[in-house]
Amino acid sequence: MFEVAELGHSIDKATYKKEVPKLREALLDAQFELAEKKPFPVILIVSGVNGAGKGETVNTLNFWMDPRSIHAHAVGEQTDEEADRPSMWKFWRRLPPRGTIGIFFGSWYSFPIRQHIEGKKDQDYLDAHLDDILRFERMLAEEGALILKFWLHLSKDALTDRLTTLESSKETKWKVTKDDWKGLEKLDQLVPVAEHVLRRTSTAHAPWIVVEASDEKYRNLTVGKTLLKAIQGRLKETAKTPPLAVPVDSLESIDGKNILGSLDLTQALDKSDYKKKLAKQQGRLSKLMRSPKFKKRSIVMVFEGNDAAGKGGAIRRVTGAMDSRTYDIIPIAAPTDEEKVQPYLWRFWRKLPRVAHTTIFDRSWYGRVLVERVEGFCAQADWLRAYNEINDFEEEMTRHGSIVFKFWLSISAEEQLERFNAREATGYKRFKLTEEDWRNRDKWDEYAHAVCDMVERTSTEIAPWTLVEANSKYFARIKVLKTICDRLEKEL
Amino acid sequence: MFEVAELGHSIDKATYKKEVPKLREALLDAQFELAEKKPFPVILIVSGVNGAGKGETVNTLNFWMDPRSIHAHAVGEQTDEEADRPSMWKFWRRLPPRGTIGIFFGSWYSFPIRQHIEGKKDQDYLDAHLDDILRFERMLAEEGALILKFWLHLSKDALTDRLTTLESSKETKWKVTKDDWKGLEKLDQLVPVAEHVLRRTSTAHAPWIVVEASDEKYRNLTVGKTLLKAIQGRLKETAKTPPLAVPVDSLESIDGKNILGSLDLTQALDKSDYKKKLAKQQGRLSKLMRSPKFKKRSIVMVFEGNDAAGKGGAIRRVTGAMDSRTYDIIPIAAPTDEEKVQPYLWRFWRKLPRVAHTTIFDRSWYGRVLVERVEGFCAQADWLRAYNEINDFEEEMTRHGSIVFKFWLSISAEEQLERFNAREATGYKRFKLTEEDWRNRDKWDEYAHAVCDMVERTSTEIAPWTLVEANSKYFARIKVLKTICDRLEKEL
Repeated sequence: MFEVAELGHSIDKATYKKEVPKLREALLDAQFELAEKKPFPVILIVSGVNGAGKGETVNTLNFWMDPRSIHAHAVGEQTDEEADRPSMWKFWRRLPPRGTIGIFFGSWYSFPIRQHIEGKKDQDYLDAHLDDILRFERMLAEEGALILKFWLHLSKDALTDRLTTLESSKETKWKVTKDDWKGLEKLDQLVPVAEHVLRRTSTAHAPWIVVEASDEKYRNLTVGKTLLKAIQGRLKETAKTPPLAVPVDSLESIDGKNILGSLDLTQALDKSDYKKKLAKQQGRLSKLMRSPKFKKRSIVMVFEGNDAAGKGGAIRRVTGAMDSRTYDIIPIAAPTDEEKVQPYLWRFWRKLPRVAHTTIFDRSWYGRVLVERVEGFCAQADWLRAYNEINDFEEEMTRHGSIVFKFWLSISAEEQLERFNAREATGYKRFKLTEEDWRNRDKWDEYAHAVCDMVERTSTEIAPWTLVEANSKYFARIKVLKTICDRLEKEL
Repeated sequence: MFEVAELGHSIDKATYKKEVPKLREALLDAQFELAEKKPFPVILIVSGVNGAGKGETVNTLNFWMDPRSIHAHAVGEQTDEEADRPSMWKFWRRLPPRGTIGIFFGSWYSFPIRQHIEGKKDQDYLDAHLDDILRFERMLAEEGALILKFWLHLSKDALTDRLTTLESSKETKWKVTKDDWKGLEKLDQLVPVAEHVLRRTSTAHAPWIVVEASDEKYRNLTVGKTLLKAIQGRLKETAKTPPLAVPVDSLESIDGKNILGSLDLTQALDKSDYKKKLAKQQGRLSKLMRSPKFKKRSIVMVFEGNDAAGKGGAIRRVTGAMDSRTYDIIPIAAPTDEEKVQPYLWRFWRKLPRVAHTTIFDRSWYGRVLVERVEGFCAQADWLRAYNEINDFEEEMTRHGSIVFKFWLSISAEEQLERFNAREATGYKRFKLTEEDWRNRDKWDEYAHAVCDMVERTSTEIAPWTLVEANSKYFARIKVLKTICDRLEKEL
């Protein structure tokens, strides 16, 4: 596939001089519209042979365009804050907000390619990694990102020429580094791997564009024009037609049986029993949290449940056994405006715990397949794809060593009504009921249906759902604590 | 001053049992109102003798209150991302947004106290550090923060008793660490230093509260009640009366002379001269940026100027000589909602560069004393105090090794009118003039006055303003580049 990039493409000086002003003008106009309307982010990956002028190409783009809404990232060595979190965290934190352009030098491709070339990992490992990347990029694209991936290519001869020429002049000598010469030696190893990677990961929504890089003018102009066309094209697109999806009703169980219905909500605990068990389980948890093994792990907990099911109370019994310095509770409400211009998972990625820490989400990314689905806040296609995206997300956490807990606190409609009434009677402002609580209640069956789908599709071996019978608060709290302790005992 | 905390304060079990439910109720109500109205953030510092139960106290608060809007921070060892930035960065990034409570264990006091006790630094160093802290806390308070600083105290005997008792039981043995026993040994050293620190830094807006910690119940109840009173009191306060300040008109120069008027705006460069000089200065800059010494420094640049003065063009000529991977340009527009619930400097702190990197601010924290002053977006007292706060901010950067550049690009009113007219004529959307541009123009004299005050009060030896005559764009760009290169040559 690189043959087309070894044809000796070049642009003469006069043409370049004529073309560049027009291109700049058009790029600036497109960029202005992008920044003003903020319809999507642009993600550029600039990869390729060392010495092919990746840095120069991006510097040129920056000079042609308005550099204030372009951010270039050289993601090289991990910082310790990055090493403490799942490997994709360092890219998530750098994703460009809508309306801006993010350029990645060291991208999510660098690591698997390097591992493979250095012989540390085999082809299967590489391919598994590429599958992950494909899913990640598809998610970005579905969230609206315009993704372009440039591979700057040079044949061995052309690269040798280029490095020699650069080194021969005082002015440009510094541009050639040891890595460039090393890259030349490894070119024969790199090319077949790169071919494989590019072929497997070039998709309609995130294509690779191979650019011959021996002639700077040709290289710059090709990258610039490609970028321009892509932005212009996307700006012109009207609202996208959502991809076809299975009509939702077909998912409903035809015999009316479902997993929520199978719960025995009459299970209860009396107070004295509760107090004894609470002390015991909190003692266990407190000890487990001090395990030296936890220093290399982290914990992510998700609490979901019916309104008034007692999530807050359960959370407090869990944190009651923990050191306040080691956990954070993140209540999920409306996204901030910085979160709104990012993929929906972004706000959760940014809160992931470091090792030896715990993040507890009071409501979570499951809002996508619960409230957003039921209330129609997102398209059907969007919440349908969310199941897989969420499973991928949780798999990344687990792979990194996080222990993921997910609790659904379930109460009956009658119990909820009683609690609502009790809350109205107390008069405490902080327990006040909102219109929304009553509205959600009216959609009880729809929510129940969404919950069943959610459990079916996202209860995985690595991150199972625990359904908690919560008509009795005491019973629920002990079940939550015990579930956590049992699992931690196995894992730590 | 610690005598009052060695009286053997204690609360009996019955009283505690009676008091706690009432206190919790009231704390929850206050916290609910705080979270809902978001009038201010609460900053708690929990310091004191090791082994006095700092962790337990905060765990208790977390259990009594709603832990979802409380975040506790153990700021211990710096991460590498923190070490790469001014020392206060690690606290700024953890400041609680309005409506929430932030608890700091390792606070801005820990480091200077430790340095002094370990004999690495003398009293003068400590006092200089305390002055910085006083200014920092005053700024936080003026920005609306409720600041409470608890010092948990134990006499040597009481601490010995406590540690021995804890160690004697299987259940609590783990709570005693080697550090606690070491703390006991060093108590005689700590106490006089702590006294000195507390006396110097206990202010009306950020008081120290010394709490005897030998009895857990007394300790918890005292901390809880103090916190409650402080939040309740502040919630009841009506809009604060701004502190007295010198009426602004008295600052005006009486003979009409000012520093902007002294600029010779006729200075110009012709195109061929410009091209030569541009190549030369960009070459210099490019070389300087590759200096090995820069690996331990960072650069912060501020570009301010009249509308249409050519900030963007000047910035592009600077970045044209830099590697896109090493700089970020931050255009300052309206703050995001995450920024709005923080002190006004927060949005700039979060963008400070790591070492070997550059951040370029296109407009900056000087908005406080320019547009916010002129348009009345903040009170007079607020922009008046900003001069000092800004000087402190820049001093912290400089101390850390950042090199701070500040450019004011100055054009004449006639030149601006010409440029506005030219922009209207081009028809490029991206050059469109807004109502605001014309409105600012109407206030030309007020802005000029604000600029002169700004230069007078914030042009310091470590972070001087460079006034750039910008009627000629060519002249301005070269002056900017040359200023940068000259200074970098000295510093690197």
